[in-house]
Amino acid sequence: MPANEVQVLAVDGARLSARLAELAAIGAIEGDGCARLALTEADRAGRDLVVTWMLDLGLEVRVDAIGNVVATWPGRDADLAPVMSGSHIDTVRTGGRYDGNLGVLAGLEVVETLQRAGLRPLRPLAIAFFTNEEGSRFAPDMMGSLVYAGGLAVEEALDTVGIDGAVVGDELARIGYQGPHPCPGEPPHAFVELHIEQGPVLEAAGVTIGAVTGVQGISWQELTITGQSNHAGTTPMDMRHDAALAAADVVAFVRRLAIDLGGHQVGTVGRLGLHPDLVNVVAARATMTIDLRNTDEAVLQEAERRLAAFLDELAEREGVVIRSRRLARFEPVSFDERIVGLVEATAEQLGHRVARLPSGAGHDAQMLARICPTGMVFVPSHQGISHNPAEHTEPADLEAGANVLLRVLLALADAEALP
Amino acid sequence: MPANEVQVLAVDGARLSARLAELAAIGAIEGDGCARLALTEADRAGRDLVVTWMLDLGLEVRVDAIGNVVATWPGRDADLAPVMSGSHIDTVRTGGRYDGNLGVLAGLEVVETLQRAGLRPLRPLAIAFFTNEEGSRFAPDMMGSLVYAGGLAVEEALDTVGIDGAVVGDELARIGYQGPHPCPGEPPHAFVELHIEQGPVLEAAGVTIGAVTGVQGISWQELTITGQSNHAGTTPMDMRHDAALAAADVVAFVRRLAIDLGGHQVGTVGRLGLHPDLVNVVAARATMTIDLRNTDEAVLQEAERRLAAFLDELAEREGVVIRSRRLARFEPVSFDERIVGLVEATAEQLGHRVARLPSGAGHDAQMLARICPTGMVFVPSHQGISHNPAEHTEPADLEAGANVLLRVLLALADAEALP
Repeated sequence: MPANEVQVLAVDGARLSARLAELAAIGAIEGDGCARLALTEADRAGRDLVVTWMLDLGLEVRVDAIGNVVATWPGRDADLAPVMSGSHIDTVRTGGRYDGNLGVLAGLEVVETLQRAGLRPLRPLAIAFFTNEEGSRFAPDMMGSLVYAGGLAVEEALDTVGIDGAVVGDELARIGYQGPHPCPGEPPHAFVELHIEQGPVLEAAGVTIGAVTGVQGISWQELTITGQSNHAGTTPMDMRHDAALAAADVVAFVRRLAIDLGGHQVGTVGRLGLHPDLVNVVAARATMTIDLRNTDEAVLQEAERRLAAFLDELAEREGVVIRSRRLARFEPVSFDERIVGLVEATAEQLGHRVARLPSGAGHDAQMLARICPTGMVFVPSHQGISHNPAEHTEPADLEAGANVLLRVLLALADAEALP
Repeated sequence: MPANEVQVLAVDGARLSARLAELAAIGAIEGDGCARLALTEADRAGRDLVVTWMLDLGLEVRVDAIGNVVATWPGRDADLAPVMSGSHIDTVRTGGRYDGNLGVLAGLEVVETLQRAGLRPLRPLAIAFFTNEEGSRFAPDMMGSLVYAGGLAVEEALDTVGIDGAVVGDELARIGYQGPHPCPGEPPHAFVELHIEQGPVLEAAGVTIGAVTGVQGISWQELTITGQSNHAGTTPMDMRHDAALAAADVVAFVRRLAIDLGGHQVGTVGRLGLHPDLVNVVAARATMTIDLRNTDEAVLQEAERRLAAFLDELAEREGVVIRSRRLARFEPVSFDERIVGLVEATAEQLGHRVARLPSGAGHDAQMLARICPTGMVFVPSHQGISHNPAEHTEPADLEAGANVLLRVLLALADAEALP
């Protein structure tokens, strides 16, 4: 198509915001939030609404065996693999209206914009929402995209029992979303997901568009520190084996570790409890979690090694016993440099401030990255707040993100090969 | 009396241990422990048994308005103020058999030993057990001795509501221990209490007898630290306001503070909790307690000042809000040097290793110290364990402590004036 047509092409931000609000009304909770846990009645109602919009756009809607919904708009050449976009529409129990939903509805907005402009790309465009991205009701999270990408057998996923005793397969059948299409799915030509950042980096830097370079690797462990319970008044400081003190040393070490390693290394102690937890008793036991993340697997492993060495030294120094249990471990994912570069260049062309950054949270895109060139577009989250009804992104930023997505999908879908 | 009679005078250690075991059978719990919470049925049964032993020794038993029981053996001069010994027989919910009970039963053992030897001192000997020393059911602890010493009005004490909703006055009447004798009580000539150390100092030093110099002052506060909840993956280290990290810094500071101040300063964080307490969320809030103790009021105040200054600095540095609430504050108590010296000299004469040390725990003796010259004798606690069924003191040490008590009470009761 002529270059000048593309130049004036833009999504309808008001329509996008209106759809976000209409979807958010399903499972609405106080404070403008949403509760649509995966495969509940609210999830069914949300799915039904989005499928209606997909059908209104004349898309071919397919539901697969794990309940992923993929809506395809055929390209000028129907035999080419589609360019896919999308995200998820399930939420956490106290969720906001943007997490996931934005990526799905912006994908539909891109299709509608192109249709109204009479611009059909060379390749098909496929807009998907994946089942149970949040993992709040059924573990693991990112379940639907993991199954789509062949990382988890569909039979195993269907047998998953949730926190409420419900089974994924039963719930999918009950809400009418156990579809006939097989898993794993067909690899797309490329996959690009628009998402809110869920962190404070873009807003703090005054940047509108994030060109996401990958997803951090995650290392979670739980420590149990056993010291000796003693009277807080009668036990001299040098005769103590204080589990609280050892735990506090771990908290301080985790921060030093993250700062020393620098880059994108983060480290967090989010859970910490003492036993017997009495004002006048030196703690006998502490339990705590450590969350380490890095985009670089080698550095993440170095962080784990340094932590382990510190724990040995600490146990020796304080006369306590420290047991560690692994809770989760995912390697980092790197997105395709061609797509990261395309996102960055597109945002610059549209006059936005853009920054490359990794994602600290997990996303469906990291599963699709296993089977096709993948990238993500981030827009700012106000104060970094997410998984919270107060989650907010400015309408202008939503629109900016959708326009970047529009240009990126069009560039990918209008060419035989990647840039 | 002739010096040689006193030299061979000794308590019957087996009889003392047998009485401790018989009393421990009332309210016995697994692991050789005791549960006789104040003013319960178990407390009543324990009181009845001890009163039976008092009456068997021919003592005059008086019960006062707060349920303190004082058993008096008249001296050669009935008009002189008595020398008093004693402690308490209530226990914590998971108590041992020595805490408190030893001081009461050793007092009776001293009287029985003197009676069998035909040695009646110049002054009366009074053996007391005070109501609700532990404070596990009704606050404050050391209630009976506090009322005896005039530090709390009996009417106020009687109105105290317990953790189970029971009222002290009702419970005293129900178990038959609301006596006719008025409070505050008559000041004795002197008061000496034998108690287990409840700490590890004597055992670790290989010392049998502790000459207690006083009771540490106590400063308890509760902190609420408010930071900002954030995603553990998406929030860079330098953009956090992590309540867990601030709490850990406080824990580490409290130890440094105690070590820097030296002497008998101790500091403990025994309670610590995070909110929302999730592995992947930077903590929004931490609540914690700080227990500071010292024998020197000026140093304890210095500790409080340094802590407050640190908290201001920490709040500024981490961008968190720290609120502090006072939970308890007691000034240190110093025992009478003449009695401390007498305990020390007596233990040495009996061939025991002896050390002067302060008490880190509260005792009835600190209340009696308000109205008469007071001292305490400590015997070792195995591994410092107390308020636990595993509380243990070697029979030889129990006997040694009772013999020191015997000589000290006799020296005080056989003289018109203090040494």
